[in-house]
Amino acid sequence: MKKAVVLLSGGLDSSVAAYVARKDIGKTGELYTISFPYGQPSIEADCSEKISKLLAVKEHWYSCPVGIPVTGTEGGVFKPFEDVRETGVEEGIANTWVPQRNSIFLALAFAYAESIGADFIYTGLNSKDYSGYPDCRPAFVESINKSLNLASKRFIETGRGIGIICPLMRLTKKEIVLLGLKLGVPFKKTWSCYQLGPLACGKCDSCRLRLQGFEQAGLIDPLKYR
Amino acid sequence: MKKAVVLLSGGLDSSVAAYVARKDIGKTGELYTISFPYGQPSIEADCSEKISKLLAVKEHWYSCPVGIPVTGTEGGVFKPFEDVRETGVEEGIANTWVPQRNSIFLALAFAYAESIGADFIYTGLNSKDYSGYPDCRPAFVESINKSLNLASKRFIETGRGIGIICPLMRLTKKEIVLLGLKLGVPFKKTWSCYQLGPLACGKCDSCRLRLQGFEQAGLIDPLKYR
Repeated sequence: MKKAVVLLSGGLDSSVAAYVARKDIGKTGELYTISFPYGQPSIEADCSEKISKLLAVKEHWYSCPVGIPVTGTEGGVFKPFEDVRETGVEEGIANTWVPQRNSIFLALAFAYAESIGADFIYTGLNSKDYSGYPDCRPAFVESINKSLNLASKRFIETGRGIGIICPLMRLTKKEIVLLGLKLGVPFKKTWSCYQLGPLACGKCDSCRLRLQGFEQAGLIDPLKYR
Repeated sequence: MKKAVVLLSGGLDSSVAAYVARKDIGKTGELYTISFPYGQPSIEADCSEKISKLLAVKEHWYSCPVGIPVTGTEGGVFKPFEDVRETGVEEGIANTWVPQRNSIFLALAFAYAESIGADFIYTGLNSKDYSGYPDCRPAFVESINKSLNLASKRFIETGRGIGIICPLMRLTKKEIVLLGLKLGVPFKKTWSCYQLGPLACGKCDSCRLRLQGFEQAGLIDPLKYR
């Protein structure tokens, strides 16, 4: 029995990663999704619920929030997405970055995977079209994967580690959209915008990358934009 | 201005580590403590509050609980400490072990340290007298420290990383007690037992290691035992 955990925000990338995971483990495999509410739009959480149902997951773990108090700082897991920048995808690390977000999420997902006996953790992490986030690079993922196995009872006792799989790591957004199309991802049930909705803003980093991806793939994004 | 974050459960080891941190950064340095309630006795949390006050910390962050649902498993962050073993410190990984506990705590502490501009994270991790936990070994700490810096905006942009300091890593419990004595740690205000109190059980791994440490140091533990 193949088992996999997917870090599923409900955005485009993690939804495509979830469909890749389902394809990899097959219809009989057990899929588990895990979502972390940390101040992002609730519409994204609804999407993670819908995608989880469509993929017939064994369990969708909607985690309790993980709080980082923001003390005179520019980032924090509970930072509200108020002042999301609307220009300049290429200008370094975006202000939507929160410290150690992926480290925290991957450590929690790893604990979850270990507790249910899964062999793989799938994520939509992507180094190509990201917004300058240092925790979206292959070097980081390889390093933390090694670290988490070093802390793992199962790995120490049996030598069998848990692998963090990033099927989108080196894909462009265009390629991610095309992969999603091929796998039947219902794009309408994914949400990428940093704003609340019900219409996507079309201006934040995430919206612009998404729209660009659809355009370059020769497709029309079914989401409604302002 | 020196700034340090201490992972402070309120137990003996983390309390001694907190006193080492205060000594290292001096009276004028800013100390921050961080505690994670995950099902351990509330008396330990009270101790973390008392120790924080005594050390005149800038902030004691008592984190919201981090939940790991336990699905047909032997471990989990919310696992109640009901069936704590009462014999055999040496017999492999104890059943009080929870998957990735230190990875999760260190990732959260690192995010906190990064957000307040601290250079160091102190922990009471100890590889010598531990209960077989794989995430208490130097190899794990070195690895995760490297991983977390790879995910750090500050490290990527400035080359200045945050260091995880484990002053007790290679000390025996006897040496930890003697170090605490030297630094003036109020042992009475620390709690190590896995049970609820008000009297410590004296039988769980943690109690036995503590009692052994005091005995070997030629001291009497001021805590009351059943």
